[in-house]
Amino acid sequence: MGLPPRTVERLIKYRRLLESYKEAESMFIFSHQLAHMLNLTPVQVRRDLMLIGLSGNHRKGYKVTSLLKLIDKLIDHEDGFNVAVVGLGNLGSAVLRFIQRSNSQMKVVAAFDIDQTKINDASHGIPCYNVSKISYFIQKMKIDIIILTSSSVTAQEVANEVISAGVTGIMNFTSAHLDVPDRIYLKNYDIITSLEEIGYFIKNPLQGKS
Amino acid sequence: MGLPPRTVERLIKYRRLLESYKEAESMFIFSHQLAHMLNLTPVQVRRDLMLIGLSGNHRKGYKVTSLLKLIDKLIDHEDGFNVAVVGLGNLGSAVLRFIQRSNSQMKVVAAFDIDQTKINDASHGIPCYNVSKISYFIQKMKIDIIILTSSSVTAQEVANEVISAGVTGIMNFTSAHLDVPDRIYLKNYDIITSLEEIGYFIKNPLQGKS
Repeated sequence: MGLPPRTVERLIKYRRLLESYKEAESMFIFSHQLAHMLNLTPVQVRRDLMLIGLSGNHRKGYKVTSLLKLIDKLIDHEDGFNVAVVGLGNLGSAVLRFIQRSNSQMKVVAAFDIDQTKINDASHGIPCYNVSKISYFIQKMKIDIIILTSSSVTAQEVANEVISAGVTGIMNFTSAHLDVPDRIYLKNYDIITSLEEIGYFIKNPLQGKS
Repeated sequence: MGLPPRTVERLIKYRRLLESYKEAESMFIFSHQLAHMLNLTPVQVRRDLMLIGLSGNHRKGYKVTSLLKLIDKLIDHEDGFNVAVVGLGNLGSAVLRFIQRSNSQMKVVAAFDIDQTKINDASHGIPCYNVSKISYFIQKMKIDIIILTSSSVTAQEVANEVISAGVTGIMNFTSAHLDVPDRIYLKNYDIITSLEEIGYFIKNPLQGKS
């Protein structure tokens, strides 16, 4: 089944939102409620859920547990995902802790840095290796996804190396524009771009949200 | 002119990409080149640029300086934007430094925290105030945009307070779901959601990228 990226993004958001509902066991939810909580339109929500084969009950809405089970089946993967963080500065450490605390299938198995004091520091609960050995450890530890928080100057070089070593997903927090093969899933997290987008819309309101 | 959010997002990306071209002064670029660099379709690029009133030359493409000037005029605001970071932990510090180093209209004018050692620390080059005084300083310093990196437990409370004090843009890095009025532009930066999206697409390739 070919789900559009935006639908996948929204399905994951539905799950994240509904997971926090403690009383979910016996709960039903209407598309307009989900839509309201995520600033979407009810039509968009119904279309997404129809795409994954779920239809709501006109009077009661969607059964939350069925919805969650279906999304889990679609999104989760039996083996989980091995993740590595490149760069253990402020941002890398924050992202690492964020993932470790989350209840997700993402498992951070290693970090990489060039700073010798960080390489010997085990305080994060995972090994930190020298980035010069990244290819070796990516293959050895079967790392699927790399989170790039290191210098934008070396970002393309690191990307090339990890892709050769078998990584297929990259989350790029640097401001570097990365050139990657089509088979690689690249997600750019450019904070300045997002801030400028916010800036535009607070000066030009009445134009909807993303 | 009512530009769709996705178009605004892409226009900002075009600018960011082209700004790094040192030789831009005399350069022309084709829609397919821009599209390739940002994983978009040429049609999408042409539609975006048509929306802002720019048409390319069939043989030479778009003049880079004209393109940049038009986007500047649309996105930038004469007064710039005053930004505050709430939470000066690893993530807050990283985001702060990122913005300070960037060549953008975003100016971080203050930080807020609850930790007394951070409140007295001026090492970031901006004052850090107690979050209990956030309303006062938002009005006094005319802060437009808040970046939330503090605890997700207090996120909604902080959001309510800053909105009452006049903030109209929020970038939310916490995992909390925020409920805000329609006139507020809220951008959620959920790292786990993005990682799960990457996970889905590396296990289900051939489905395009975002």
